[in-house]
Amino acid sequence: MDPQLDSLKFDSNGLIPAIIQDGESGQVLMMAWMNRDALEKTVSTGKTHFFSRSRNKLWLKGESSGHIQTVKSIRTDCDRDVILIDVEQEGAACHDGYYSCFYREHQLGTDWKIIGEKVFEPEDVYKK
Amino acid sequence: MDPQLDSLKFDSNGLIPAIIQDGESGQVLMMAWMNRDALEKTVSTGKTHFFSRSRNKLWLKGESSGHIQTVKSIRTDCDRDVILIDVEQEGAACHDGYYSCFYREHQLGTDWKIIGEKVFEPEDVYKK
Repeated sequence: MDPQLDSLKFDSNGLIPAIIQDGESGQVLMMAWMNRDALEKTVSTGKTHFFSRSRNKLWLKGESSGHIQTVKSIRTDCDRDVILIDVEQEGAACHDGYYSCFYREHQLGTDWKIIGEKVFEPEDVYKK
Repeated sequence: MDPQLDSLKFDSNGLIPAIIQDGESGQVLMMAWMNRDALEKTVSTGKTHFFSRSRNKLWLKGESSGHIQTVKSIRTDCDRDVILIDVEQEGAACHDGYYSCFYREHQLGTDWKIIGEKVFEPEDVYKK
C-alpha cells in the first residue's frame, strides 16, 4: 500500500502512461502503460513492470530478453496523469534491437529515417 | 500533406501521445496529446501544437503564456504510436511555474516531494 499512488489519475481503463528515460544520458527509451498493480510492483521490486493492453496482462520488462530496467527515480507531472521513470537499462530497451524505441526521425520530403544503431539482433535474443 | 504521418497509429479517439524533451539537456518537459491536425501544424510551423481533450480544441503551446516550444526534431517509436519531440523551450513548460511538468518525485514512506524549482509565478503570467 502506497498512499502516494492514490493521488495519481489512472484513465478509464485503469492505466497511466509511463515514460522511461535513461537516468544517465537523459535519452528517452520507451513509453508503455501501467495499471496500479504494475506501478506497485515497480515500486516494490525496483524493476519496471507494465500492463500489456494486447495481452491483457502484467509483464516484467526484460522477462524474456533479460533487458531489465532498474529504477532510479519515479516522478509524476502537474496533472498527476503521467509517470516518468529514470532507469538503468540492461542491454537495450527496444525489442527491435535498438537501445531506444525512438529510433526513427521525421525528415522533410522523404520517409522516417532510422537514426538508432542496432545493439542486438532480435532473432538471437527472442529465439524459441 | 505528409505521407510519413500516415504510418503513425492514432488511437480510437484520433490521438497520439507526444513526449516533449529539452533538446539540449534531455530533460523531459511534458506529455500531451496530438491529433493529426496538431501534428501537421507542429511540422509546418515548427512550434508545438496539441489537442486539448478537456477543451476539445487545438492549441498552440504558449499561446497565452508566451512559453512556446521550437521544434528541433520529431521521432516516433517502434510501434509508431508515440511521438518524441526535442524542443527549445521558451520560458518554462509547466503552467504551475516549473521548467518541467515532472517536478514531483516519489519518496518511500512519505508524500510526493517537489524537486523542481519555480521559474515563474503563474498568477503573473496567466493574469486576466
